[in-house]
Parts: sequence; structure tokens; C-alpha cells
Amino acid sequence: MNQLSNGDAVDESFLVADKQLRANRQGNLYLHLELRDKTGSVGARLWNASEGLARTFDPGDYLRVKGKTQVFQGALQLILSHIEVVDPTKIEPEDYLPQSTQNVARLTARLREILLSISNPHLRALVECFLIDEEFVRKFTTAPAGIKNHHAYHAGLLEHVVTILTIADRIVDLYPELDRDLLLTGIFLHDIGKVSELSYDRAFAYSDEGQLVGHLVMGVEMLRDKVEQSADLTGEPFPNELLLRLKHMIVSHHGTHEFGSPKLPMTLEAIALHYLDNLDAKIHTFSREIRDDPCRESSWTPFQQNLGRRLFKGIAQSNGLPDESMEP
Amino acid sequence: MNQLSNGDAVDESFLVADKQLRANRQGNLYLHLELRDKTGSVGARLWNASEGLARTFDPGDYLRVKGKTQVFQGALQLILSHIEVVDPTKIEPEDYLPQSTQNVARLTARLREILLSISNPHLRALVECFLIDEEFVRKFTTAPAGIKNHHAYHAGLLEHVVTILTIADRIVDLYPELDRDLLLTGIFLHDIGKVSELSYDRAFAYSDEGQLVGHLVMGVEMLRDKVEQSADLTGEPFPNELLLRLKHMIVSHHGTHEFGSPKLPMTLEAIALHYLDNLDAKIHTFSREIRDDPCRESSWTPFQQNLGRRLFKGIAQSNGLPDESMEP
Amino acid sequence: MNQLSNGDAVDESFLVADKQLRANRQGNLYLHLELRDKTGSVGARLWNASEGLARTFDPGDYLRVKGKTQVFQGALQLILSHIEVVDPTKIEPEDYLPQSTQNVARLTARLREILLSISNPHLRALVECFLIDEEFVRKFTTAPAGIKNHHAYHAGLLEHVVTILTIADRIVDLYPELDRDLLLTGIFLHDIGKVSELSYDRAFAYSDEGQLVGHLVMGVEMLRDKVEQSADLTGEPFPNELLLRLKHMIVSHHGTHEFGSPKLPMTLEAIALHYLDNLDAKIHTFSREIRDDPCRESSWTPFQQNLGRRLFKGIAQSNGLPDESMEP
Amino acid sequence: MNQLSNGDAVDESFLVADKQLRANRQGNLYLHLELRDKTGSVGARLWNASEGLARTFDPGDYLRVKGKTQVFQGALQLILSHIEVVDPTKIEPEDYLPQSTQNVARLTARLREILLSISNPHLRALVECFLIDEEFVRKFTTAPAGIKNHHAYHAGLLEHVVTILTIADRIVDLYPELDRDLLLTGIFLHDIGKVSELSYDRAFAYSDEGQLVGHLVMGVEMLRDKVEQSADLTGEPFPNELLLRLKHMIVSHHGTHEFGSPKLPMTLEAIALHYLDNLDAKIHTFSREIRDDPCRESSWTPFQQNLGRRLFKGIAQSNGLPDESMEP
Amino acid sequence: MNQLSNGDAVDESFLVADKQLRANRQGNLYLHLELRDKTGSVGARLWNASEGLARTFDPGDYLRVKGKTQVFQGALQLILSHIEVVDPTKIEPEDYLPQSTQNVARLTARLREILLSISNPHLRALVECFLIDEEFVRKFTTAPAGIKNHHAYHAGLLEHVVTILTIADRIVDLYPELDRDLLLTGIFLHDIGKVSELSYDRAFAYSDEGQLVGHLVMGVEMLRDKVEQSADLTGEPFPNELLLRLKHMIVSHHGTHEFGSPKLPMTLEAIALHYLDNLDAKIHTFSREIRDDPCRESSWTPFQQNLGRRLFKGIAQSNGLPDESMEP
Amino acid sequence: MNQLSNGDAVDESFLVADKQLRANRQGNLYLHLELRDKTGSVGARLWNASEGLARTFDPGDYLRVKGKTQVFQGALQLILSHIEVVDPTKIEPEDYLPQSTQNVARLTARLREILLSISNPHLRALVECFLIDEEFVRKFTTAPAGIKNHHAYHAGLLEHVVTILTIADRIVDLYPELDRDLLLTGIFLHDIGKVSELSYDRAFAYSDEGQLVGHLVMGVEMLRDKVEQSADLTGEPFPNELLLRLKHMIVSHHGTHEFGSPKLPMTLEAIALHYLDNLDAKIHTFSREIRDDPCRESSWTPFQQNLGRRLFKGIAQSNGLPDESMEP
Repeated sequence: MNQLSNGDAVDESFLVADKQLRANRQGNLYLHLELRDKTGSVGARLWNASEGLARTFDPGDYLRVKGKTQVFQGALQLILSHIEVVDPTKIEPEDYLPQSTQNVARLTARLREILLSISNPHLRALVECFLIDEEFVRKFTTAPAGIKNHHAYHAGLLEHVVTILTIADRIVDLYPELDRDLLLTGIFLHDIGKVSELSYDRAFAYSDEGQLVGHLVMGVEMLRDKVEQSADLTGEPFPNELLLRLKHMIVSHHGTHEFGSPKLPMTLEAIALHYLDNLDAKIHTFSREIRDDPCRESSWTPFQQNLGRRLFKGIAQSNGLPDESMEP
Repeated sequence: MNQLSNGDAVDESFLVADKQLRANRQGNLYLHLELRDKTGSVGARLWNASEGLARTFDPGDYLRVKGKTQVFQGALQLILSHIEVVDPTKIEPEDYLPQSTQNVARLTARLREILLSISNPHLRALVECFLIDEEFVRKFTTAPAGIKNHHAYHAGLLEHVVTILTIADRIVDLYPELDRDLLLTGIFLHDIGKVSELSYDRAFAYSDEGQLVGHLVMGVEMLRDKVEQSADLTGEPFPNELLLRLKHMIVSHHGTHEFGSPKLPMTLEAIALHYLDNLDAKIHTFSREIRDDPCRESSWTPFQQNLGRRLFKGIAQSNGLPDESMEP
Repeated sequence: MNQLSNGDAVDESFLVADKQLRANRQGNLYLHLELRDKTGSVGARLWNASEGLARTFDPGDYLRVKGKTQVFQGALQLILSHIEVVDPTKIEPEDYLPQSTQNVARLTARLREILLSISNPHLRALVECFLIDEEFVRKFTTAPAGIKNHHAYHAGLLEHVVTILTIADRIVDLYPELDRDLLLTGIFLHDIGKVSELSYDRAFAYSDEGQLVGHLVMGVEMLRDKVEQSADLTGEPFPNELLLRLKHMIVSHHGTHEFGSPKLPMTLEAIALHYLDNLDAKIHTFSREIRDDPCRESSWTPFQQNLGRRLFKGIAQSNGLPDESMEP
Repeated sequence: MNQLSNGDAVDESFLVADKQLRANRQGNLYLHLELRDKTGSVGARLWNASEGLARTFDPGDYLRVKGKTQVFQGALQLILSHIEVVDPTKIEPEDYLPQSTQNVARLTARLREILLSISNPHLRALVECFLIDEEFVRKFTTAPAGIKNHHAYHAGLLEHVVTILTIADRIVDLYPELDRDLLLTGIFLHDIGKVSELSYDRAFAYSDEGQLVGHLVMGVEMLRDKVEQSADLTGEPFPNELLLRLKHMIVSHHGTHEFGSPKLPMTLEAIALHYLDNLDAKIHTFSREIRDDPCRESSWTPFQQNLGRRLFKGIAQSNGLPDESMEP
Repeated sequence: MNQLSNGDAVDESFLVADKQLRANRQGNLYLHLELRDKTGSVGARLWNASEGLARTFDPGDYLRVKGKTQVFQGALQLILSHIEVVDPTKIEPEDYLPQSTQNVARLTARLREILLSISNPHLRALVECFLIDEEFVRKFTTAPAGIKNHHAYHAGLLEHVVTILTIADRIVDLYPELDRDLLLTGIFLHDIGKVSELSYDRAFAYSDEGQLVGHLVMGVEMLRDKVEQSADLTGEPFPNELLLRLKHMIVSHHGTHEFGSPKLPMTLEAIALHYLDNLDAKIHTFSREIRDDPCRESSWTPFQQNLGRRLFKGIAQSNGLPDESMEP
Repeated sequence: MNQLSNGDAVDESFLVADKQLRANRQGNLYLHLELRDKTGSVGARLWNASEGLARTFDPGDYLRVKGKTQVFQGALQLILSHIEVVDPTKIEPEDYLPQSTQNVARLTARLREILLSISNPHLRALVECFLIDEEFVRKFTTAPAGIKNHHAYHAGLLEHVVTILTIADRIVDLYPELDRDLLLTGIFLHDIGKVSELSYDRAFAYSDEGQLVGHLVMGVEMLRDKVEQSADLTGEPFPNELLLRLKHMIVSHHGTHEFGSPKLPMTLEAIALHYLDNLDAKIHTFSREIRDDPCRESSWTPFQQNLGRRLFKGIAQSNGLPDESMEP
């Protein structure tokens, strides 16, 4: 979908992300759709639609559409001439949602490799309890790290966690006070709540539990269940201080109350986790916004609402007319 | 008006809240109106209008209109075929502005009943001075509590004040340190400035004085006038400390500088007023947003700008596709 | 202890809250103690102490002391002439920590009465699971609501919760949209984490878990355990939406991120809980500061760091010289 | 008093600003006083005092004291050998409170001169109503502009207002949109509430009304009274818009909610007033802190809590060791 | 351009500020342009345009256009019937960008006059080094003071600086502690970085350096270069303390970290500069918004995003219907 | 010095960091000194001092002192029996200021090694210009990174920069979009202003320039000088975009306006620098506070003003009495 340009003819299948039946000024009905594949989404219109046709499908279904592209109010849209519902059993849902560009199997193997290097027996047993839980691993290796922000694609969470684990593994010798096992375990666990905070089978969204309780608290609950399993496995109680330190890393990793942490980081591993998490998330976000900005003529991206700033892409080979849309 | 759905024929009278004469792409003139009755407002268009026709009425007048409804850009609008100015003397203005669903006479009786249970003679005389002022009572029992926020309808202020008085009356025995008479009087007075801060005879709006001075300061001025009357009535000077405490309750009831109070609550009755005021206002706002949200398919209301959050309505019986529009 | 005045002779037993051995300018050792009973605490000095004597007791032990009171730098202190360690088995610890002035048995009965009026069978079974847990009830009816802020005494938490339950019970009919059973259960549960966040057997303090994880997250964990018991009891799964709503009330009851809630209140019962909690806490704090301020000559309390303001006590019968220490 | 240095013998009369009877470690009583004259204040101790002696005077009385100065904990204090109560009728109270260094009569004349240059008849009549009110003029020409901040001395308010009026008078021609009469009247009125917000006959303090209601609201009330007089005087009603603009200037002159204004400046004259007020106040504060800093060896004043910064006094001729006490 | 009203025929030349080629619903191409002259800008459409025509010009070029005006969605636009590229050598660029209404030569003379009244030889030499730099003077007398905020027109920076210099010159005698020479020099230099932070030859914009480094730091760099020249000129080193004070005035003049100053004002001249700068900028902004608001029927301007408020224009002679669009 | 405990006899040389001559209650003079060696500082008193003795030395001089230690108000102090001025030529100043525990020569070698791996010829030439400047290298390898915060010891800046360079070097391959040469150069340069912002020859302090201008702006000025040299060296102009990106990294590295950056990070390398800088600084600060806390009986450090929190040291083997001094 990110290959389309103005005036292209289109004949492809898409996921229906949104559907509205509207009337134009003359009172004629038309369909306004949002269509999506794994590279992005686009608005689409089918003129002269009927209520009957509109009832044949819902958001979440797949449509094969024919039509052509057109620029409207500065954005590309599809003007459809034909639509047809597609049998979902013939569809690979993952073709319709954004994916990590990295090899998920290799990332998963790397995750196991780093986690199995943990030597503290309690922490080692704990991470194993997670790794042998197939349902958990399926979700953890599929979930995005967010809906719109950094790593917002399938396996984005895995990619994010493996990167931070790799960084931690490489630099932990520089800080002898840091407990390597605790840091690695905390990095692995910090976002586990996201596997249920988000839903990502068809479209990416927050679950009701995600919005009402949030992945920090959900992560602590998941940790508790596995700690009990782990104690059964080792035959020894999980050390209380270790458990407190892990819970603390989960609830404090956003770093400030303002960003939703009920506690500020108060241990060495918690503060390290907070900055490593941010380092990877922000580099990822900056890279994506700079890379994906379609406008070649400006040295700057548009204003990024989430970041509160525009980003500098490098001095453009534009026609020399300065960009007028920015006032700090 | 909140009964209308797509394609309905309409033949009714409305208040004109806004009027614009515009030209379409072909240069033909049309009228763009905002029409209102007590259940809500709607946009309306009359194609092929003339300047002559447009001059026959202004915002604030009433029109009888014929036409039919249509969905445009996701919202309902009226396409008018005929308009006709209505003689305002044949109109009940209150049919065209939102009303409390409660019985205003009964609310007013309840207000008197609670206030006349005040035993401190100075405070009792003071509230009587307000209650015998017919012009004040007319305004106080008509005014909304706001333009857009909580209780934004005729008699909304009365409903709000009577509810808080009722709560205070029921719980004051739990806190022996609270002065019942002072608390009830302060609740009654805290928003009296709103009777002049807002205008609400035809549409709801802020008066110039409301915007430049605000209902906190205006309330103190109104209190001062009645305190003089009250002293004349009782033949005794109104006790200075009592007056200071009442003024303080008025100027501090927003609770923080950020919300426009020049002083923080520094007495027991002032802090109680602040939380009771907020309790009722927020429960009212949450209830209305949850009740009035027209979208049945989502568990959540849209993002509420004033509240900085979405509200949870309960898990919807939707088609299972999660809502994608939310990123915290 | 709050009966002491300058020059009194003292012969009583106290809890040692703090102990320091210091040297004066001449190099002579003396003991600096903080002594406490249920009415308050006082600094004390024993001149010419030896290291041997200092080793005979620790903070948390009880001492019988003789001496007399003296004003030093504006505060009362004890100058000790004799100290003697007391056998702790002869001590009632509750005589040495602040207590609720209300009857704890009656409060507990009132708690049961209100909670057993809940009609939703799942919520009713849930609260019963808590009420039949004797260890929980013992802690819940003993814990303070805080260390320094409101209700900072034994059974303070119980007193706080029963008061809010009573208010909710009296006013819930004013708001038909509020779910009475959900609101009462949420009020009961909102601070349960405090029974382990704080330690209060000898002195009041935060536990390590309290500081690292906090009572909001701890409360969710406690709720989860009881929900499992409750489902076993009823033989039916606890409804998921009900559980989410309860967890949400616990995690959001501080109202804003700034005060440590990871989520803002997004349901009607959650916003009601937040304001009722604050209403009671602030009225309690204001009452205590005004009542306990020992200075009769000023109309104002000293500046309250936690509240960011001074409180008005009423115009004092002082000698007319205004207080100079206040600059807003 | 600001002439005293270490070891000086003292034999002078002072105002008693504070009095405390304390016991030392040996249980002997001593008096701890704060003594004041118009150049400043100093702590003083009289060893071996009796309760009888202490009862012979109160704060607000005057004492003749003998003793000598001594440096204690970095500050100068008086060690008294003799005290004696002074008959207050033989005292000029203004000798014991800080005074403007400018000629008050000349400042008052300048105030009248500028105000009487107002040409709008309503505003002219209004300011005359203030100027013929002798009690008001007495207070207005005596009051300090604050307790601790800028212009904290007798006639400080007058000095502040006359300076701003002079600036406005000199620059108003640069901004043709500014209404000179309105601006001058608003400057004159903006702080009139301070004549009752503060008490300054013996020591400087906030009155109860000042703390509970504040000089912004008090100023609006004072304005209303004079506007009625003024309308009687001119025989014409005071124009409503003019009154609103004046009230708005008073309530908005602190510029932001954070600094206690219930309204932001929304007129041209209100925004000009806000910046002129700040310009004079801040230049005054900076000048005083730089001039009064007694430490000659540092290029910097100590950290100013009110300003949130240290001030640069100019590179000192010190011994070259940089000041170590500053970490931003 | 600000003379145009609905239905006017137009035959004039404009600067092309933006150009987009779009397709309408029927797939026909049209040009969407933003055209500009020194009085403002307007949107324009040319129906049935070809790609070939669109390639004949770019933003920054000039077009002669024929067409007529039309109201679309509440704003005026041009419907073009004919366009023709204009030879830029026949154009006076300054006719197409907003200009100061004051005489630039006279402002420049006034600038020199005030600056040459500086008596400190180092500061005098320094300002002369700027004034003899023709390229600098050309830019300084052409640059706007901003893109959208105050003084956003050619020579706006000069107008702003000359006004503040004039104010400082008139009031400096009121504050004997202020160093007149230092204050005037600092006012002159505070915004010099803007001559390169902004680009203003064809349209107004931020330069890349302006966005990445900012005019505060750029101004310090420019100052350093001239200080070296100045020392060469006088044959004496520029005094270090004087240079620090000037740099400090530049980097601190925004007054707070929040507004981008890396240092708070810590000298008398720096704090004076900060308030004088704001006084002029805010009076200018308020005046412009009140003067330029086209809506005669409301007493209020629309909400000003930059100022966080609406401005009061004076009570309107409207039809009495209050304005409904405001909720604080 | 950090080896001292209560009652130790002392006979050593120290740097005098502060000197005050005071009088006690009996009017006898004594000296109050702050003494320092490289492990810390301590307060000291010499009773019965004379003015003559006090004049024989100043802060910045060295004293040999005899005396013994004593606990006063919870802190250790020295009671001196003898002092004697030491000939500074016989002193190694670095023995009296805190030092890095790492080998400075090895750190310097590591710095060169990493920087000389830069391949971009302009950046390579630029860093060489710094490395061949012996005066710069001497300062850069001596300066602390701060006065009180992280790395507040000689060579602390070098240690900090080498650590971040090492981390960047190890992880840059994980982010292909990051420009390694630019990132390494920016890390090297980000704090160069500190070599003149601080003074650290005898005691650590801010220079006047450091306080008035700050190390961000000073660093840009230093960069400019070296860029000119570098262009001379290579015979090619230094690329403008590269220079802008380096300046931007320096001015934005504090990350937010609140922490004194005039610009937010807007490039990939600037955001990476910001988080790497913080990661190292915060891990360093947490490690030091946890390691240096002398109190073995508490699981927690005291409240850290700079961090706004206490830090968790691990569950202590204390006597079980919880710490009472913490209220969140």
C-alpha cells in the first residue's frame, strides 16, 4: 500500500478497518471505508452504494477491491468501482497488519540465549517458567510494543526487548554495582503486561483491561503467577527481596508519575532499565519518523505531536523556498 | 431534535443560533444555519438562497423550517426546502433551550426548606434577603451551572446547589467540627455570581462581565449588598468574621490557583465546599457523557477534552473488533 | 504526654522511638532520645550517659524515665535524671501508639453491617471472603491510614473507610447512575494494600514493599487472591467486567498521575470514590491541624507543608499585634 | 541598627517584635526577644530573666535596652544586661518601622499631579473621590507594598505606584492604542486593596481579611464604593464598560492564575499594567538584594528563595577562592 | 488583498507561497495555490489545470492571475480563470511581504542616535562595529521580529528594538542602579541572532540554523566576533566582566527555562531587558489582534492559541445575542 | 578523612575550605573552619582563638591541625587543640580534592583511541585539534563533571565521557541509522564547556562565566574556535550541516527546556546523546549514594533532594524497627 501513487489502478484485497454509509449533498448514498494491509492504511469511497451492499460486511472482514487512486485534500484515497467480500479462511491475517522487518525466529532464539545466561537460580527458574509457557511465548513474540508509538508492529515488543537485553549484556561490565541477572530479568519482564494490554490479532488496539488497569499492574500480576510456579519448580521459596526488586522494576519503569509509574525508580537496576527502555524507544521513533516522512522537499518532518517537536532530516535539495509552517 | 435520524422529513420551528450566507463552487449562494431546540442543535443548509431572504432574520429569531435530514461527514444535518420567520410572541423561549429534567418548583421549595433550617440569626437573615429578592430568585432558578460543562441547562445551577445542600445536610453530623449553618450558607452562595456571569435568556453564553471579572468576584459583590440589607433587617451589624468566612468560601471554592481561585481553601467549611462541589459536578459530567454517547458499538466514550480521558461505559456487545482510536 | 507543660516532673514509661549517643562540647557523652506514648512524642536528654548504659536498650524498647520538662528552642523536652528498661511483657503496646478515639468494635460492626447490605452475589461473596479472614480483619481494624497525614493512628484506616461508606450509603440515592454495590465494595477495597504497606505494631512506618511497590498495586494483588476464593465459594467465576471495575477503582483512586495513580478514574464509581476519599481525608486533616495547634494567640496555624497553606482558626483574642511570619 | 558590628555596646530603644521566655540546659530562665527599629531587626537575649520581668511588656511595646553585640551562628545578636519599658506616648512609632527613603509629601504631590491630568470626566471624578478621602490617603501614603518582597517599608506602596505612573506617563505616546486615562487610573487602583490587606501601624503583617480574601477582591470592593460616590458627584451613572475594564485590571494584574489572578489580562491596559508592575517590582527587588548583601568577598548574593536564583553583584576583589556553595 | 470581499473580480500579481496539483472526485486535475502580497494571503483554485501548466512555476515565483472571489467554508478564496508567470526582475519583492508601517530610514536614524549616546568607550566601540557593518545593518533593518507572533513584518525587529531603546532611555533615570550604557547595548543586541535565525527575503521562515541552534546562542556567537573587532579598533582588550554581562543578557532575555533561556536573568540590566522586551511584544500582539479582528459583531476576538485567552475589544453594537463559543 | 570515627585523635594537614571567627555566649572568640582532603570535608572548631591567629591564613590555604573528633548534632566534627599554616609549595594540591579512582593516563589513552577511530575527515581533524591543544587536554583530564552531582571529583568529566564513548562504540551497530562518527564527536564535545564553567584547582566551584553563560553556550564558542583551526588544517571549509549538527548536540543535550537546554533534541544523534548521558550520570549517582550511605541499620538512604526520592540499599539486618522518617 505504501507503493501507491496518484492515478494508479488497484485490484487487491484489504482488511476493512472502518465502514460508514453516508449520503452526499444530493442525498445519494456512498460508502466510506478505511482499508489496511501490513504496509499501512488508506481511505476509500464507493459512490452510489446501497444499504444492502453495506450490510454484507463489517470492520474486521476482508474485501477485494478494484478502483483507482486519487489525491484528496493532500492525502491519497481510493475511488472504488467494485468490492467483493473475501473468504477469511483464504487469508493470512498477518499479511494485513504491520510486521517486524527482523526474523522473528532468530529474535526469539536470541531472547532465549540471553535469558538462559542468567546464573541466579531463582531468576533462571523464573524466566524458564515464562519460556516454557507456549501461549505466553506466542503472544510475547507477536505483540507490538504499542499502538502508534515505537515498535507498533507485530513482534515489535520482542524486537524492543531483545535490543535492550543486548545493550545491557554489552555494557553491564562497565558498572560493577549493577546485578546482571536482576537487570536482564527486569528488562525481560518490564513490558510483559502488554501481551494482554493490547489486542493485535486483527487490528492493534487497547483491551478494556489495558485501559482500566494498565500493563504495569498487569505485569505484576503475571509475575506473581509465574513466581509461584517457579517456587514449585525449584522447591524453594522465591526470595522476597528479589521479588520486590522485580515488581519495583515493573511498576517504576516509566520513570515518573507523570508518565504513569506509581513509583519512581529507587534501585540501581530500576534506573538503568528506565533509561535503556527510553534510549531504544526514542531512537526507534526518531528513525521511523525521519525515514517514513514522504516529503522530500523539506529539511524537517512535520510537527510530531507525541514528541512536541519537528525532527531534522538533513538539509534538503529543495528549491530554496524556506518552510513557512513552523513557529516555535 | 435528538429523535431525528437519517432521511426524516422535518416540519418544525427552531431558534436560529447562527446564520451564514455562503457561495458554493459554482458561485451560487446558500444559507448555512445552526438551529436549536431544547433537546440539542443541528446544522442546516438552504440551497439557492438570496441575500434578500437572508436579511429577513437574525440569530436569536425563530424559523419554521421544512426539509429532510441527511448524514454529512458523520453528522446529521438538515437540507431545507422552505423557511419562514415565526412571530416571537407566539413562542415559548424555554422550548428552545435545554431544561432540567427535574421539577423546578419542587427544587425551589427544597432550596427554601433547607436554607430556612439555618439557625444562626445572621446567616438566616442573610439567606432570607436573597430569597425575598424575586429578581434574584427568578435568575437563580433559571440559570444553567455552565455553558458546556456540568448542568448546562436551565435550572442546572439550582439542581446543582440543591444536590450539594442535600448531601451536606445528610453528612454534617459525621463531622462535629463543621459549622452546619456556615456550610449551608456557603454552598448556597458559592456560585451566585453565575446568575450574572452567564446569559441564558435565548442562548447560553458568558456575559462580558463574566469573562472580565468572573463569578467568584461577582459573587462577593452580590454578597456585600445583601449583607447590608440583612444588617438593616436585623438591626445588628453582620459579624465581621462570619462575613470573611463567607467571602473566603466564595473566592476559594475552585480549590487551586490553577482553576482560578485567588485563595486556597483555608477553613474547614471552605475545604468541604470545594470537595462537595467537585463531587457533584464530576458525577454529573461522567453520567451525562456515558448516557449521551450515541455509539453503541464501543465500550468507551470518545476522548473527553475537558476531562483529559475517555470514559468506560461497560463492555459492549460489539462485533469484537477492538477500538483503534486510542493511544494514551 | 500532650498534658505536659514547662517545669513538670515526670515519672512514666515510654516507647523509645529513637536513640543517639552524642558528645557535648566538653567531650562528655549524653543520650538523646525520642520518647513516645499514644498521645504524642517528645525529645529527651540524659546528661553524662555511658556507652554501657546506651547498649542496654534499643529503639522499640520501653523505658521508665524520671526527669523534668523544659522548653528548648520553643519546644518542650525532657531532661532525664534516671532511666530503666521495662519488661515488654508487662506493657500494652497499644498504650504507646496513637489510637482512634472511636470505639473500634463498634466501627467494625458498622463495617460489617454496611458491607453485608450489598446485594450483588459476587460482590457480597467477595467482601465476605475478606471479613472471614481473621488475620486480615485484625490488620484492617488496627492499621493507621497513614504515617503523618490524615488518620495517622491505630484503627485510623477503619475509621476512614467506615466514614466514607456511611456517606456513600446516605447519598447514593441522589445519583441513580451509581451502582451502590460496586461503590461500597470499591470504597472498602481502595486502601486494603495499606495493611501491608505500613507497619504499625510498634512504631508507624512504611514497609520495604510499601515503598517499592505501593498500596495501590498491593491492593490489586490482595483482591486477586480473594476473588479466587470467592469464585470457589460461589461455584461461579467472578465476572470479568466486575473485577476490572474493582481493580480500576483501586489503581485510580488517587485521582491523578501526580499523586501516584497509574490510571485516571474512568468510571462513575471510580470518580465518586476519589472525591469521597479526599473529602474525608481533607476534612480530617484540617480539623486535626486546627484543633491541635497549641498556639492560642494567633488566628492562624503555622504553615502546613503538606497542604501548602496556613489554616484559619478563627479570630484570636490576642493582644492585637498581627502575626508577621506570613508572606504568600 | 544596620550600623551595628561585633562587640559594640548598645544603649537604645527598640520595638519588641517578639518575646519568648525559655529555659537553658541548666533550667535557668532567659528572655529571647526580637527587637526592631526602622533600619532592621535583631535577636536579643537576656540571661537569668524572671517570669515577673517577662510579664511587664508584650510584643508591640517599646524597650530601652543596654548590652553588647555578638556574632552567633553567623548572625549578630544582642546580649542584654538591662531592659526597661518605655512610655509609648514618648515614642514616634515611625522611628521603629522601615521607611521610604523618598520624601512622602513630594511623592503624594506627584501622585495628585499625575492623577489630576486625567481628562475622562468619569475617571477624573473617580480618582478625586479617592483623593478627598483623607483616611484612605493616609493609609495609601503609609502602607508598604508588601511584608518581605519589594517596597516592604512605610510609603513603599506609594513609591511603587508613583514610579509606575511616571513610567506610563512617559511612554504612553509610543502606543496610540493605549487609553492613557484608563491606564493611569488602573495603575493607581491596582493595589489599593493592600491598604487593608496589610497592617502596618506597629509591625508589618497580613490582616485576617488580607489572608482570607486578598487585595485583588478587596480592591474591587473599594472601587465599587467609590464609583457610587463618584456617580453621585457627577450626577451621571459611571459607564458600565469603564467599570468592567477597571475591575478587570485589578483582578488580572498578577498576570497568571499561578500568581493568584482569577482572570488573565484580556485588555490592552491590563496587559500593560501587568508588565509595568513587574518591571518596577523586580528592578526594586534585584537592586535591594544586590545593595544590601553584606558579604563583600563573593561576586554573588546568597540564593534568593523568592526569585529562585542567586544574583550577580559584579566580580569581587576577593582572595580568588571561588564560592563553593552553588549547584544549580 | 485585505480589501477583497465576496464576488470581487481580481486581476493582479501575487507571490506563490504554495502550489498543489490535485484531482477532484471526477478525476479531473485542478491547481490549489496559496497566493500572497504584503497585506496577507489567500487560497486559490484553478479548475481543469494540466500537469504541463503546473510545471511552469514553483512556490517563490510570481503569477499574474485573473478570477473572482468566493466564500468557501467561511473563508474567502479565489476562483481563477487565467494565470501567467511574471518576470521576477519586474517585481519589487517587498511588495509581496508584510512591511512595517513606520519609516525604516527614520527608525534606523533613531537607532544610531540612541546607540551613539552610549558613553562607555568599550560599549560605544562595540555598537559602532555593528553599525559600520553594512551587511549586518541591511539585515537588521529588514528582518521581522518573528514569523507569526509580534512584529511579524519587514523591519519589525528594528521597530521593536527602537521602541524598547526609547522606553529605556526615558525611564533609566528612575533607577539609579541601572547602568544606562549596558542596558542600551543589551537591548540592541538581545535579538541580533534573529537576523540569521529567520529567512525573510521571499517568505518568512526559520532557517535550519535557527531551528537547531536558536537566536540566543547565535547572538552570542555574533557578539564574540564583533568584540574581537572592537578590541582591535580600540587597541584595548574588551573588559571581561562587561562581555559576560552582555552574553548573559542575550542568553537570559526570555526570562525562564520554559521559554528557552538556558539561564535566568541574574543581573539588574538582564531583568530590566526581560520585562521591557515582554512589555513591548505583548502590547504589540494585543493591539494587532484587537485591531485586525474582522468580526464586528462580537465584543471579543476569537481564542488566541499563543496567548491562551480571548481578548476584549469593547462592548459591540451587536444584535444582542451573546457569543456562545466560549467556555473557560 | 572518611576513615574518622568518634573520639579519634587527629594530626594531619587539610585544605581550608571555609573560615569564620565567631564569639560564643560568653563573648569568647573561636574559629569555625571547614577542612577538606580528597576523601571529603569536616567541620572543625578551635576554642579561644584570637583575631591575630585568624588573620594568618585564608580559605584556600593549608593547615596542619591536631585535635580529636566528636559527634555534634549527629555529624562528626573536629575539636582542634593546635593549628599551623603549611607551606603550600610542600603540598600536592591533588591530595586535597577528590580524585577519580581510575587511572587517568589510561582513561586519556582510551579517549584518544576511540576518537582516532573516527573516519569522517572533518570530524577527525576537529577532534585532533582538541587533542593537540595541551592546555585543553590538561583541563579536560582534570575537571570534575560537576560540583555536587555525579562524577564530582578530579578527572570525573573524563571518566564520564570515556564511559559514554565506550557504550556508544559497543552499541552503535544495533542502530544503522546512527552516524557513528557524529555520535562519538558529539559525546566528546557535549560537556567541553565545563572545563571553564567550573573551577577546580583548589576547591570545586562555578566560575562567574559558568553561572552567567553556562557550559552549553560556552561549549559552542569553544567548538567554533576549533572548527576554524580544523578548516585551516584540512584546507577545506568545515561542512556547514555537520557544524550545525554538532552545535545542536551541545545545546540540546540536557533534553528539555526545564533542565536548561534552549533547544530540544531534534536529530537522531542528539537524542541518543541525551539518553546515554543520563544513563551514565544516574547510574553513577545511584551507585555513589547507595555505597556511601554510612547508616547500616536502614534499608534506605536518606531522602535525596536532587533525586526527589530515597534509594533502596537492600533489606538491612537491622533490629527490625522500621524507619519512621518517610512519608511520600
